[in-house]
Amino acid sequence: MRWWGWGDPQHPPMLGSKALRLLRQQVGVSEQPRPPVALASVRLAPGRLPEQLRDELAGILPAGSICTDHAQRVRHAAGKGYPDLVRLRAGEPNASPDAVLYPAGPDELRAVLAACERSSVAVVPFGGGTSVVGGVEPLRGDHEAVVALDIGQMAQLGRLDRDSLTVTAGAGMRVIALERSLNDRGFTLGHFPQSYEYVSLGGCAATRSAGQSSTGYGRFEDMVEGLSLIAPTGTLTLPAFPASAAGPDLRQLVIGSEGTLGVISELNLRVRAKPEHELYEAVFFEGFHSGCEALRELAQAHTAPAVVRLSDTAETAMSLGLAGASGGLKQKLGGAYLTLRGYSAGALAVFGFHGSTEGVEQQRREVKRVARRHGGLNVGGSPGRAWAAQRFSAPYLRDELLTHGVMVETLESATHWSNLHRLHGDVSAAISSELQRMGTPGLVMCHVSHLYETGASLYFTFLARQREGAEIEQWTALKHAASQAVKQAGGTITHHHAVGRDHIPWMDAEIGEQGLRALWAMKDELDPAGIMNPGKLLAPRA
Amino acid sequence: MRWWGWGDPQHPPMLGSKALRLLRQQVGVSEQPRPPVALASVRLAPGRLPEQLRDELAGILPAGSICTDHAQRVRHAAGKGYPDLVRLRAGEPNASPDAVLYPAGPDELRAVLAACERSSVAVVPFGGGTSVVGGVEPLRGDHEAVVALDIGQMAQLGRLDRDSLTVTAGAGMRVIALERSLNDRGFTLGHFPQSYEYVSLGGCAATRSAGQSSTGYGRFEDMVEGLSLIAPTGTLTLPAFPASAAGPDLRQLVIGSEGTLGVISELNLRVRAKPEHELYEAVFFEGFHSGCEALRELAQAHTAPAVVRLSDTAETAMSLGLAGASGGLKQKLGGAYLTLRGYSAGALAVFGFHGSTEGVEQQRREVKRVARRHGGLNVGGSPGRAWAAQRFSAPYLRDELLTHGVMVETLESATHWSNLHRLHGDVSAAISSELQRMGTPGLVMCHVSHLYETGASLYFTFLARQREGAEIEQWTALKHAASQAVKQAGGTITHHHAVGRDHIPWMDAEIGEQGLRALWAMKDELDPAGIMNPGKLLAPRA
Repeated sequence: MRWWGWGDPQHPPMLGSKALRLLRQQVGVSEQPRPPVALASVRLAPGRLPEQLRDELAGILPAGSICTDHAQRVRHAAGKGYPDLVRLRAGEPNASPDAVLYPAGPDELRAVLAACERSSVAVVPFGGGTSVVGGVEPLRGDHEAVVALDIGQMAQLGRLDRDSLTVTAGAGMRVIALERSLNDRGFTLGHFPQSYEYVSLGGCAATRSAGQSSTGYGRFEDMVEGLSLIAPTGTLTLPAFPASAAGPDLRQLVIGSEGTLGVISELNLRVRAKPEHELYEAVFFEGFHSGCEALRELAQAHTAPAVVRLSDTAETAMSLGLAGASGGLKQKLGGAYLTLRGYSAGALAVFGFHGSTEGVEQQRREVKRVARRHGGLNVGGSPGRAWAAQRFSAPYLRDELLTHGVMVETLESATHWSNLHRLHGDVSAAISSELQRMGTPGLVMCHVSHLYETGASLYFTFLARQREGAEIEQWTALKHAASQAVKQAGGTITHHHAVGRDHIPWMDAEIGEQGLRALWAMKDELDPAGIMNPGKLLAPRA
Repeated sequence: MRWWGWGDPQHPPMLGSKALRLLRQQVGVSEQPRPPVALASVRLAPGRLPEQLRDELAGILPAGSICTDHAQRVRHAAGKGYPDLVRLRAGEPNASPDAVLYPAGPDELRAVLAACERSSVAVVPFGGGTSVVGGVEPLRGDHEAVVALDIGQMAQLGRLDRDSLTVTAGAGMRVIALERSLNDRGFTLGHFPQSYEYVSLGGCAATRSAGQSSTGYGRFEDMVEGLSLIAPTGTLTLPAFPASAAGPDLRQLVIGSEGTLGVISELNLRVRAKPEHELYEAVFFEGFHSGCEALRELAQAHTAPAVVRLSDTAETAMSLGLAGASGGLKQKLGGAYLTLRGYSAGALAVFGFHGSTEGVEQQRREVKRVARRHGGLNVGGSPGRAWAAQRFSAPYLRDELLTHGVMVETLESATHWSNLHRLHGDVSAAISSELQRMGTPGLVMCHVSHLYETGASLYFTFLARQREGAEIEQWTALKHAASQAVKQAGGTITHHHAVGRDHIPWMDAEIGEQGLRALWAMKDELDPAGIMNPGKLLAPRA
């Protein structure tokens, strides 16, 4: 993974000349490319691991599992949020770990936590490092130092129960590794977040991840049946049951705890038989409203396929504009043809069908029937296939946009169907109006990508010309305006990105003062010294 | 509701003369009927509400909402578990509330909790009073006195959102009342526990209830999107979202808290469109194993209908024996006919299909196809209809059995498919062997009634001749033997009855020492004086 951005350094460029022209017209780009600094130029404060901890760690971990070199510290200095990347590319991360530790198993992990607690050193659990909300930023809080605890070595694959459809795995295992291993044996986890190629299982659990196929396979929290959390005061092991009425469900307290209670070390997960077929198809709706009505009908009739995405008219226009460059989509969705049929400002939906040949056909028929009733025009497989082919690529594109001086940020919420258009309108307007106030040209677009019986998610993307030299201030103002709008319009502050550092100010709207006190009580029980991921999820207490 | 047993005093008797003969043969009955004592003969300790609390309550609640009369105290002296009924019928409940309070809304409720905390008086939240695990027994712990807090007046129906399929209701509302109100408007909650006619919404949430249609509609916890908990230290209000990644899910901490953290006052629930049709059908399998394999296939293909029940051979034999008396079923399932086809000791399954005409037909075809593959013989609608007609009647039958000196108790667990037969065998054997050790003739039977992708519930029923004068000791020994077997065979101690008083000794197997400490930390935060339902869910601390 590139230390200053996303993914495989060999990945081909995504921003073609026509797309760049479109971008220049609508948003503006910097005159000179703005590449990241060299790794050696990244400025880190000198490591200040306490002597005592250094000695103790040497007795716990082999030498190769205690890293204090520049490259490792930089690689664990931030996640992959917009402000993280802005700072990394400039060579000025907000913080850096004084050491990076790689425990090989639960016993080492327990000993490391105990040692860190004794030396008052903060511990930031680090899985794939893909947080986009500051979740892995190595803040030390009021502690002496901070270590990144990389769980990458705790990636053992445990038992696959083919009858019960469950599997056990170490939390450090990457989702892609588990998925491939399951696929080889005819199974699937079905969890495909955009960070799929890098994210760890533990990270997905710690952040209530939801993948692109969540409509069919459920959110990550629906897949977790049992888990172990290693906390400073002890290990919380919750065995896997299909269901239980034995008191509060502590699993759902560990899930979403974002490293603030301890380190998730192992997970028991539900799997499914790998579908024989996957097929993607697109439907063009006259507008976002009619598209949403079709989605609602599918979700409430339990006939929605595994993947359902619906872009609003702004996102659709951008997709068609970008795709126009490549030809295929334009032929079918040519402006003249669509305008003739009254679809001048339409909303494009992508449906992904997973199942047996027969099952896929049945799902397609049902989607066609419902889409037609809501004025949808089936536009065949190519836009759907195009989406599927690029489904994990957006973070690569973001890196290129940053090089061209373009800010790109995403945020997501969820609300009930009856409130969806209010949330969509208010948040879009809040971002647009903040961009206008700043005098920054920009674009705001949105899609629905996770359906529930009672509502859906909204995923906003906005692009703007970066204010060079004031990138973080610009982002902060936009993020604040959008988050306030989310709150005021009755949405949740996050549907699947988690709280991290960025959403803390809006947690009181989610769970209230009493809820925050309850979370603190839990933290005080499991992590009385407050060493676990300080400054995340919960605002420091006065 | 009868104070000494279940339900409507006008309910017709269920135990016909033939069934009684069968029972006399297989279990034995008492020579003389053993009716309950008269209400006036029930022995209660004198009420000892502290003077200060009495005065404060008079300033909070209207006179009619503070009850200290004998009848009200008896009615709130116990739930409907076997030991509760044994004691009530003998006129000797284990405990009784010093007063019964009926707050009309959240403000009164908050004031009542504050007053009770000041006087160190324990508070036992009381919904429908249907707990079968001692959940509403008015234990005072180390407090001065104990009040039953009856939420029956907090039963306001809030907004129904027809687009989002959500409804808001006061926690004191009965499930049956909400269901009827929803039905009138074309919707359903779909929650039908055996206690359906009496249980409250708040009670269902507090105990992680699962209804007979949970395979189709989900468990109660799946239906709760938002809720308010009024705790001694404040009110925890968790707004309803279709999904969220904003930290740990505190909803799942309140759900299952069994009144030990505070009183659930309001719920936001997911509803569904009322199905056009409901149809019940039965299938006879050669044995419990092949039946379970069919159920597993349906659950894992997501084609299981709303209601699925499969009796083991012992329960099937008993059902056929009892039904034999009435004729209809015997004609179709006559021993000779079945033996001829190799079904001499079969397992009867009931399937309940809910949906549109077309949807029901499709589900039926799928069930027939899968059942046939596993050797199932479709035996038509009558056994299914018979089950549906009697689905809420078992507690009435229990009362009659008690009158005849027959103990009847149920317990339930859940485990993965790969472990289901071990759990079934071990628990059945443990109960049988304990009965044998006691020299008490008895019967043990079981059914699967809630399906999940990864496993299923097992619901055990056992009948035994009561040991007169030592009924509680007999029950305690059997309950202990069964619970130990559940634990050792890897099942959860309770699938939907909750923990209450009876399952406390097995909670460490569910969540471990660290989990118990986490629950205590939460309780200390929300109820620092420990007045909320002491002696339930958690063992008193040393």
